[in-house]
Amino acid sequence: MIKNMQVLLANRPEGWVKESDFNIVENDAPTPSPGEILIENHWLSLDPYMRGRMNATKSYAAAVEIGDVMVGGTVGKVIASQNPKFKEGDHVVGSTGWQLYALSAGDGLNKVDPNVVPLSAYLGVCGMPGATAWIGLLEHCSPKAGETVLVSAATGAVGSVVGQLAKMQGCRAVGIAGGPKKCDYAVTQLGFDACVDYKAGNLLDDLKAACPDGVDCYFENVGGEVMDNALSVLNPFSRVALCGLISGYNETEPYGQKMIRSLLVNRVNLRGFIVFDRLDLYAKAISQLVRWVSEGKIRYHETVAEGLRDAPRAFIGMLKGENLGKQVVKLT
Amino acid sequence: MIKNMQVLLANRPEGWVKESDFNIVENDAPTPSPGEILIENHWLSLDPYMRGRMNATKSYAAAVEIGDVMVGGTVGKVIASQNPKFKEGDHVVGSTGWQLYALSAGDGLNKVDPNVVPLSAYLGVCGMPGATAWIGLLEHCSPKAGETVLVSAATGAVGSVVGQLAKMQGCRAVGIAGGPKKCDYAVTQLGFDACVDYKAGNLLDDLKAACPDGVDCYFENVGGEVMDNALSVLNPFSRVALCGLISGYNETEPYGQKMIRSLLVNRVNLRGFIVFDRLDLYAKAISQLVRWVSEGKIRYHETVAEGLRDAPRAFIGMLKGENLGKQVVKLT
Repeated sequence: MIKNMQVLLANRPEGWVKESDFNIVENDAPTPSPGEILIENHWLSLDPYMRGRMNATKSYAAAVEIGDVMVGGTVGKVIASQNPKFKEGDHVVGSTGWQLYALSAGDGLNKVDPNVVPLSAYLGVCGMPGATAWIGLLEHCSPKAGETVLVSAATGAVGSVVGQLAKMQGCRAVGIAGGPKKCDYAVTQLGFDACVDYKAGNLLDDLKAACPDGVDCYFENVGGEVMDNALSVLNPFSRVALCGLISGYNETEPYGQKMIRSLLVNRVNLRGFIVFDRLDLYAKAISQLVRWVSEGKIRYHETVAEGLRDAPRAFIGMLKGENLGKQVVKLT
Repeated sequence: MIKNMQVLLANRPEGWVKESDFNIVENDAPTPSPGEILIENHWLSLDPYMRGRMNATKSYAAAVEIGDVMVGGTVGKVIASQNPKFKEGDHVVGSTGWQLYALSAGDGLNKVDPNVVPLSAYLGVCGMPGATAWIGLLEHCSPKAGETVLVSAATGAVGSVVGQLAKMQGCRAVGIAGGPKKCDYAVTQLGFDACVDYKAGNLLDDLKAACPDGVDCYFENVGGEVMDNALSVLNPFSRVALCGLISGYNETEPYGQKMIRSLLVNRVNLRGFIVFDRLDLYAKAISQLVRWVSEGKIRYHETVAEGLRDAPRAFIGMLKGENLGKQVVKLT
């Protein structure tokens, strides 16, 4: 019998999530019934949205119930199939949760080819985060050549793609990240024109220096003070893609955003979005990203945690910004 | 010689504007040179945006310089013309400032007919505020029949038109206003389905009760706590037309907006706008509003100050919400 391991939600965190909010269990892997497949997961994705699913409060998706397997994107290999659409040896990406083995009826799974890009890339640059960057920037911000695109969490799984897509559009790409190492990586490895370290203590002045013509597109992953400073350098008729607010996900009191006036005075179009609202564009985005990554036109970095038992620690670290690039967990 | 009276900006207010921030002067009315006309102003419009023009800070339009005539919409009669496009006796609406007589080369002036709607209506329901309501609601919010439209400052010059246009679109129209008198007026005279008194102390619960299906379109004139409560009742994929933030115009510290998360979770499209960015729609909006007002399909109310000397007091009162409907000053 194959032994499975699962990470369950043990408690709803109040404020900062702790490792004790998770419960790691071992049990027998299930056996597929007719129509089902069994997947051996090779990689687990860790993403900021998961923090929201740990709360009971209404969000755009249902909360994880206490005792349930944590939700999460995975990529793995079909090892048993009773579904004619999948055969043993197929590699599939989907959302099968924090576990080594997952049963699936095939809904929401996509076959992927590990010979085109590495398997783990289908969780990041060629997966949900990459498509998020593509849709938020190209569809909601509509950047034009010569414009300035600013993105927060610039070296994260989403932000790193936003900046590179902005460069491909002929834009000036400016990032906001925490610390000189990340900022250096954004400029030297990802090709950002500039990257501002929000931890350096002069965010507004540094943003003004990095964006001498102001900001036409702002891709927001962070919120809080970072957002207030970014809103302060917006140009008239600029666009804001509101993708995430990670600075507040573990706070019990919401930050008071002070620069709303800038949205009015500059006649800004701000759009909150999640990638799955645009399933019509998802496949196109992924196919372009796979091609650009395989051609070396888009680069990426991964921070790899080893083994499912390390997922809670790595998840908390990701929420604190300890990772560079995409945070994944190697399961096999 | 015709005696003119003008209201000049005397000081840049810090915090709440005071009557002493204005300076009332009398002088000889000017004489038109070739290409110019002299207008005898009959009505002056008082609008929230004027508060912003008193500041030195950058906004979407240039600040009024100290010693200059305050900016403002006016409607009046041509009493001398050296411009072939205008003749004596023509009635014109434009932005000629807080003064009894104005010289103009005709730029930005539109001829109006006092026999279709009363002259003062061209400053309100059939003027800039009415067009603001039309463009913000119909163009930026795109309300569909059956949806709920919420508008703050619901009995003001803009809000009162928003609610009536929403009803014409087959929507549920809900207002937010200060005090039972305004709320009663919104429901019984303007035809709102409900109006919530933000001064009653239960804004969030009252909004939930007034909007049992949530809010699909929010037309924002106020900002601050009113906005936070309104953002709390937004539906997924709702639209916010950000037209004004009057609650903060006389504050020295910006309010911290706490419900930004709602914009993300509900994938809201928020657009800051000013009416003059859509000059392509302005004439269409005005012509429709003139027709609907003349047919009795849209109603309006005016609070009238008597004489230019009373304009500063009336302006401050308008910023405090003391007016019902459109605040105008009768000059003749």
